[in-house]
Amino acid sequence: MHLIKIGGSLTYHAERLLNELKKIEKPIIIIPGGGEFANVVRKLYEKTNLNDSGAHKLATLCVDLMGLYFSEISGIETTDNLFDAKRILEKNGKIIFLPSKLILSADELPHSWDVTSDTIALYVAKFLNMEEIIVATDVDGVYDKYPGGKLLNTISAKDIRGFTSVDKHLPQLLIKYKMNCYVVNGKYPERIINLLNGKMDICTKITWF
Amino acid sequence: MHLIKIGGSLTYHAERLLNELKKIEKPIIIIPGGGEFANVVRKLYEKTNLNDSGAHKLATLCVDLMGLYFSEISGIETTDNLFDAKRILEKNGKIIFLPSKLILSADELPHSWDVTSDTIALYVAKFLNMEEIIVATDVDGVYDKYPGGKLLNTISAKDIRGFTSVDKHLPQLLIKYKMNCYVVNGKYPERIINLLNGKMDICTKITWF
Repeated sequence: MHLIKIGGSLTYHAERLLNELKKIEKPIIIIPGGGEFANVVRKLYEKTNLNDSGAHKLATLCVDLMGLYFSEISGIETTDNLFDAKRILEKNGKIIFLPSKLILSADELPHSWDVTSDTIALYVAKFLNMEEIIVATDVDGVYDKYPGGKLLNTISAKDIRGFTSVDKHLPQLLIKYKMNCYVVNGKYPERIINLLNGKMDICTKITWF
Repeated sequence: MHLIKIGGSLTYHAERLLNELKKIEKPIIIIPGGGEFANVVRKLYEKTNLNDSGAHKLATLCVDLMGLYFSEISGIETTDNLFDAKRILEKNGKIIFLPSKLILSADELPHSWDVTSDTIALYVAKFLNMEEIIVATDVDGVYDKYPGGKLLNTISAKDIRGFTSVDKHLPQLLIKYKMNCYVVNGKYPERIINLLNGKMDICTKITWF
């Protein structure tokens, strides 16, 4: 079973990637980023009296909204609960998970902009007893410096500093959960397909150790 | 009982208006516009394979999202059903209605961009046996020409052509339902307060007859 988070930066590349994932004969759970919907929340947060908790709630609902969008353009089903998700995944199915119900019901994640859908994806993966997740974004992985730096094949979560392609809360949660994370460029679906098939391709593996 | 639709153009003026409405000793049901969230859907619709039905669904959910935002900044409760809404309104309460459950459950409105939250507001008002709604927007009412035209005190729904401050589907629904609509500038909450108190102020009344 694999979990792939498709970041908001891939919104306009998502259709091709989703259609490629549909062809794979493996169970795949997909979690979107909040994308431009979440950017609206960020703007409301900056310009009005919306507080951190309110922004957390709205931004989490934006992830659902983007998930419904992914479903519209790909025909992949959505669900808001892992009970139904597991049934579909057992049949090598693909499912887009709408996480707001789980995230707001359990309410274990900080109400902060350091938490984005990367952290949400990892949090969901933990409930599924996974050991790793794939974060698809619009760059090739994590660089030692950006722009102009060198792409890292691997980096430990504890060494991640400053600019990365993942949210600020993710590294500490990787360490806590003892999980790894592959950051890969979703504009090249074949890289993700290769990873799913156990073949390394251009990406960065963030290890928890 | 009054129903006020607060348009997306008032997003950054909504807090003051909502706080003024809270002071009124009358039952008021508030329906938001989808605002910048719905603009994201519009962009996805224009740039990707999102179809009309998909866009209708997502845009309707954006109205809920904006309603939750209004609730965050004002402390006014939300509900997604008219059963609970009526209970709160009976006590001279204020309620923000999240319409997606009713709209998508009943599915009577066209899946078209001619339908926006103006039409949604009128549709909801019909379930409440209301005879009129107030549409708060960022202009003073309906002009005979815009920009540079004359503000109309009143206009018949059947005479509305071209540019107006309301969505394209609204006039025919006003006629069908035999309801009137006041278009008023929400940047001046006192105009809305006056209307609620039965005093005319600067606005346009769109009549069904």
